[in-house]
Amino acid sequence: MLTVTLEIALRVIEGVEARASSIGCPMNIAVVDAGGNLVAHVRMDNARIGAIDIAINKAWTARAFDMETAELGRLSQPGGPFYGIHASNGGRVMLLAGGVPLRHAGQIIGALGVSGGSDGQDSECARAGAETQTAASSPPAMTSHWAKTSRPISVTSGGSASSAR
Amino acid sequence: MLTVTLEIALRVIEGVEARASSIGCPMNIAVVDAGGNLVAHVRMDNARIGAIDIAINKAWTARAFDMETAELGRLSQPGGPFYGIHASNGGRVMLLAGGVPLRHAGQIIGALGVSGGSDGQDSECARAGAETQTAASSPPAMTSHWAKTSRPISVTSGGSASSAR
Amino acid sequence: MLTVTLEIALRVIEGVEARASSIGCPMNIAVVDAGGNLVAHVRMDNARIGAIDIAINKAWTARAFDMETAELGRLSQPGGPFYGIHASNGGRVMLLAGGVPLRHAGQIIGALGVSGGSDGQDSECARAGAETQTAASSPPAMTSHWAKTSRPISVTSGGSASSAR
Amino acid sequence: MLTVTLEIALRVIEGVEARASSIGCPMNIAVVDAGGNLVAHVRMDNARIGAIDIAINKAWTARAFDMETAELGRLSQPGGPFYGIHASNGGRVMLLAGGVPLRHAGQIIGALGVSGGSDGQDSECARAGAETQTAASSPPAMTSHWAKTSRPISVTSGGSASSAR
Repeated sequence: MLTVTLEIALRVIEGVEARASSIGCPMNIAVVDAGGNLVAHVRMDNARIGAIDIAINKAWTARAFDMETAELGRLSQPGGPFYGIHASNGGRVMLLAGGVPLRHAGQIIGALGVSGGSDGQDSECARAGAETQTAASSPPAMTSHWAKTSRPISVTSGGSASSAR
Repeated sequence: MLTVTLEIALRVIEGVEARASSIGCPMNIAVVDAGGNLVAHVRMDNARIGAIDIAINKAWTARAFDMETAELGRLSQPGGPFYGIHASNGGRVMLLAGGVPLRHAGQIIGALGVSGGSDGQDSECARAGAETQTAASSPPAMTSHWAKTSRPISVTSGGSASSAR
Repeated sequence: MLTVTLEIALRVIEGVEARASSIGCPMNIAVVDAGGNLVAHVRMDNARIGAIDIAINKAWTARAFDMETAELGRLSQPGGPFYGIHASNGGRVMLLAGGVPLRHAGQIIGALGVSGGSDGQDSECARAGAETQTAASSPPAMTSHWAKTSRPISVTSGGSASSAR
Repeated sequence: MLTVTLEIALRVIEGVEARASSIGCPMNIAVVDAGGNLVAHVRMDNARIGAIDIAINKAWTARAFDMETAELGRLSQPGGPFYGIHASNGGRVMLLAGGVPLRHAGQIIGALGVSGGSDGQDSECARAGAETQTAASSPPAMTSHWAKTSRPISVTSGGSASSAR
């Protein structure tokens, strides 16, 4: 199956960090793969510690139900069709905005979760991260994290200034 | 990062106890540090045993989300932006009033949680405790618990060195 | 039933703190009442955060089984009569040394738990705390925490220099 | 208290990744701050998904008890002084090798956990990561993550500004 690699996850996280930095709101950012399993998590300095678990579970929820958590939240209000779903899956279902599926070539290959600000801020940053992935041209399963992140052994004139992270 | 010491925690708790005593409502009182970890807890005589866990988790919640639990509770009603947050963090999120961040020099250095009365009583006592901290002039990281809590070595004629606890 | 009051709990904790300070080992100290419910907890500065839960549950265990946790631990080794007991009570049973019942007039009125050092250090400090209680002459259920801890309104000549905590 | 920043956490993780890559063993790598709260987690491609939780909890355990998890594991064998400690803290205590405290200026500022290989491989990689931190000269609390990780605004002729993540 096509799935998020660490390379992709870190690129997505970087996209979220950039947006979060620009709006001045430190975030927790998590990415899960097609299996719903955590690939990477970053807590920006001064981001809320209560949002670690939330970001990870937003990402899981967006993949587990293949929709944005904001949408799932709307469907889960009292009287709604999914009301009560938060009691399932041992407490992993997060109905807060900020969880967004990651897609490639029409498939869902994972998801990301962002938590630390208001619902609007979390959503904005999550979508910015997802767009980072969509914008990338390389197919996910064929990238080699190690090849891409290997440090240049020598940087001569015209060499690439690779910053690892 | 600046964080609550035991010295500060006990001073805050004493502030809460004084207010709780004056309104005749025995309380559970808990203080966590900047990392959300418990520093001290006191259950006043006759305070509810079901409120032990609540006080501790109110304190954790106020630090984990860097806001009063009463405010978080308002944002987490059905239809609100944080609705569903109580399902996160393994049941530690308390939406009841009575959790208040502790600040020093513009930073959040921990939080306290109070539980045992009505929401109004819990909030009143928690804020009284937080003000005890704000009123204190000594910076948190430089206080020496042992130095400050040592009993007077000599008292004048007729004095009894009564130590309360 | 005779039970630990907050007054007693704080006295016991102070006894542990004094010993812990003298041996240079910061501790988590917890006291539960006759019902096994937490009365007070103190984490000395720089004491291990992993020992918060352990101290509280040592105290609970010592009261729940009315024996020192070190003794329960000996009985719970592989091949022993209580082997497997740690799986009971939802993870609250602590088999580590440092949990000690508190007695008054031949009855168990609560327990304390100490955690932060080696098993020997935890035991030594816990027993020092328990002796603080035994040495006290006042019967536990008749003390008034508020009366004892009330601050002197005026301290004239010969007045007691009450230090609250 | 001094604590791990995201900048430090990512540097440590990079150190672990380099070692893990060199021995051909993909790892889960987690870093917690002084409060035991997760700062960053990375699962290298093909690392075991069962080791996500283990890496995070190894890091927590190393900070919670201020020692390597390998050492705690030795002390927690049947008959040992900490036997039974795995039952504490709601299942977060990991006794497997691969959790190592992070130090700066004589203080513990956090910890890392590595999981994915044998105990020897996990330990080797974790120590390599910890040495990355020790080797760094910058004091942790003064680093600016945003400043340090900002990409070069301009590179000279022919340079490609490749950012790995």
